[in-house]
Amino acid sequence: MKRDRVTLTDVAAIARVDRAVVSRVINKDPTLNIRPETRERVLAAIEQLGYRPNVAARSLRTSRAHMFGLFIPDFANPVYAEIIKGAEAEAADQGSVLVTGSATRAGLGEYMDRLGQGRIDGLLLAGAPDEAGLAGQLDRAGIPWIMLNHRGRTVRRYVILDDERAAALAVEHLVRLGHRRVAHLAGPSGADTATRRSAGYSAAMRAAGLPEGPIVAAGYTPAGGAAGMARLLAAGERPTAVFVANVASAIGAMQAVRSAGLEIPRHVSIVAVHDLDLAGYLSPALTTVRMPLAELGRRGVTLLSVLKPDETVAEVLDGPIELIPRSSTAPPPDRS
Amino acid sequence: MKRDRVTLTDVAAIARVDRAVVSRVINKDPTLNIRPETRERVLAAIEQLGYRPNVAARSLRTSRAHMFGLFIPDFANPVYAEIIKGAEAEAADQGSVLVTGSATRAGLGEYMDRLGQGRIDGLLLAGAPDEAGLAGQLDRAGIPWIMLNHRGRTVRRYVILDDERAAALAVEHLVRLGHRRVAHLAGPSGADTATRRSAGYSAAMRAAGLPEGPIVAAGYTPAGGAAGMARLLAAGERPTAVFVANVASAIGAMQAVRSAGLEIPRHVSIVAVHDLDLAGYLSPALTTVRMPLAELGRRGVTLLSVLKPDETVAEVLDGPIELIPRSSTAPPPDRS
Repeated sequence: MKRDRVTLTDVAAIARVDRAVVSRVINKDPTLNIRPETRERVLAAIEQLGYRPNVAARSLRTSRAHMFGLFIPDFANPVYAEIIKGAEAEAADQGSVLVTGSATRAGLGEYMDRLGQGRIDGLLLAGAPDEAGLAGQLDRAGIPWIMLNHRGRTVRRYVILDDERAAALAVEHLVRLGHRRVAHLAGPSGADTATRRSAGYSAAMRAAGLPEGPIVAAGYTPAGGAAGMARLLAAGERPTAVFVANVASAIGAMQAVRSAGLEIPRHVSIVAVHDLDLAGYLSPALTTVRMPLAELGRRGVTLLSVLKPDETVAEVLDGPIELIPRSSTAPPPDRS
Repeated sequence: MKRDRVTLTDVAAIARVDRAVVSRVINKDPTLNIRPETRERVLAAIEQLGYRPNVAARSLRTSRAHMFGLFIPDFANPVYAEIIKGAEAEAADQGSVLVTGSATRAGLGEYMDRLGQGRIDGLLLAGAPDEAGLAGQLDRAGIPWIMLNHRGRTVRRYVILDDERAAALAVEHLVRLGHRRVAHLAGPSGADTATRRSAGYSAAMRAAGLPEGPIVAAGYTPAGGAAGMARLLAAGERPTAVFVANVASAIGAMQAVRSAGLEIPRHVSIVAVHDLDLAGYLSPALTTVRMPLAELGRRGVTLLSVLKPDETVAEVLDGPIELIPRSSTAPPPDRS
C-alpha cells in the first residue's frame, strides 16, 4: 500500500524548475511572479506524479488548518446528527472540513494533544466536562472555541437554541387542548438544556395560571424516560398530559404509559422537544417541537471564524421553532 | 482568547537550558543523557508557562500522528454510534484518538487535503463513494485505509460483520415459529450490507425448503421502510412474517402494517437486523438480531495498525450474533 512518497524535488525535476518555484505555485505565493507557462508545467507535473503537498509542513507556514472540530457527549443521542450536518455544511462553505469526536473527560485531553496548535482552527464543545479547565487549556494553546447547545457554568462563550420557547410552545399546545394537569418529565439534573426546558415549562404554566408539577428528572434515553414516566404516573393524581424534555426519553415514556395500562392520547397526552424522522412513525405518532439543530451547528462554525480573542458570547440562536402536532396529543379525558 | 504563543525558546530561557535540551525532554529522545534535575527544571518551566509542543512540527519528525479517521455515510443511521464507540475505544487503547466525518463524494477529497501525509495514521471507510479512485488516492498519499462494514466493488481490503448469518438467524426464528410465507424487506440496492443480508435470507429459506419472496428494496430509513412495506403488503398473497434488513426501516415498516389495518404480530410478524436501545420500547417491542458493532469499530482500528503495504484483507469478524426475541414475532395466524 505504501510506496516511496513523491516529493517536491520529484515535481521540480519533472517540471524543470527550482524547488522554490514548485513551493510557490502550491502555496499561491504572490511575492514571486511566475510565468503562466511555468505554472502550467508545475501543475502538470503535480498531476502526473500524483503529488500531494505535505499538509503538516504547510500548516507551519500558513495560519489556517482549514479544519474545525466538534465534540459531542454521545453519538447515540440522535439530535447530534442534525447538528453535525449543519456544522459540516458551514465548514465546507468556508473551504474547510469538520471532524467530530466524543467529549469524554479523558478523551478531550488526548484530542488536545493531537489537534493542537496549527492543526485545528477552532473547537465546538457540545457538552464538555470540566469546561473551565478546558477553556483555559484552549486559550493557552491559542485555539478558538465556543460552547454549543449548553452554557457552561463558569465561562460566557456559547451559542444555544431557545429551549425555553420550545418548552413553552409544547405547554401552550397542551393548554390549548384543555389540559390543566400538565406534568413535566425533565432531563437529567445538571444538563443545561434540561434546566432551560424546565424553566420554559414553569413560565408557561404560570402564564396559563396553572399549578406546576409533578416534575421528575430522567436521562435523555429510552430507559431513562421509561423509569421517569413510571415514577410520574405513581406520583399522586395522574396528569392528563406530560411535557417530555427529550424525544429519546419520550419513546421510553410512551412505553411506560402503555405498561401502566393507559392509552396515548386517550388517557395521557405526550409532547416532546426535538423532532426526528422516526417521531412520525411511532405508535401513536409523536407530537414534537422542531428546533433548528442544523442551523445551530452552522452558527457555531461561523462564530469560530469571526470571534475576537477574549470576546464573550451569549447567543440564543434566532431560528424557527415549530410545534409539529401528531397523534400523541388530544383533549383530556374529561373533555373528549 | 488568542495570545502570543509560548515557544520552545521561552521554556529554554526559564529553565536556563539550550533549546535542544527542551526539545529532547519533550520528545523523550534517548540519544542524549539529560540529568534528572535538568529534566525536572524543563518540565517545571513547561508547566509554569502552559507550553504545548507544536504537534504539526512534531509530526514531521515522528512517524505517527496518533490519530485515526472514520468516515461514515450518515450520522443519522443509529448503528454508527456503536461503531464509533468501539473505534474510539481501540484508538484510546493505542494512545491515539479517532476523528469522524461524513463520507460524501465531495467531502472526502477535502478531508484528504486536510488529513493528508503526516496528519493521520489511517482511515476507516464505512461506505465510501467511488472506492477505487479513493483507494488509489490514499495509496499514493501513503495513508493506510480499510473498508468497514462493506466490501467495495473493486478492492479487497475490508472487515465486515457476518450479515448472512444474522439474516439466517432472523429467518430461522420465523420458521421455528411456524411461518412459511416469509417476505423480505431488503436494503437499498447497491448497499453491500443489503446484498449480504438478502443472500442470508435466500439461503435460509432454501435450507428450510420454503419459496422465497416477495422481496422489496427500501432505504435504511423509517420513510423507506414504510414505503417498502406498503408495496410488500400490496404484492399478492400477504406474508405472515417479514424479515426487515434494517432497524430504522423496520420502524417505518411497522407503521405501514398498522396503516393497512393489520396488527403486529397477530397478522404479521416482524424481525429486523441490528439491535438498538429503542427497539425494546417500540409498540410492540421489536424482535432484532444483535450484532457486534462496537467490536467491528475496534477491529478496524486494530487492522489499520498492523496491515502491511499492499496486503489484501477480506475479514468477516468472528463475534457474537444473537437473536433478541421480543413481542413483534409470534406464530402465524393459522397456527395461533
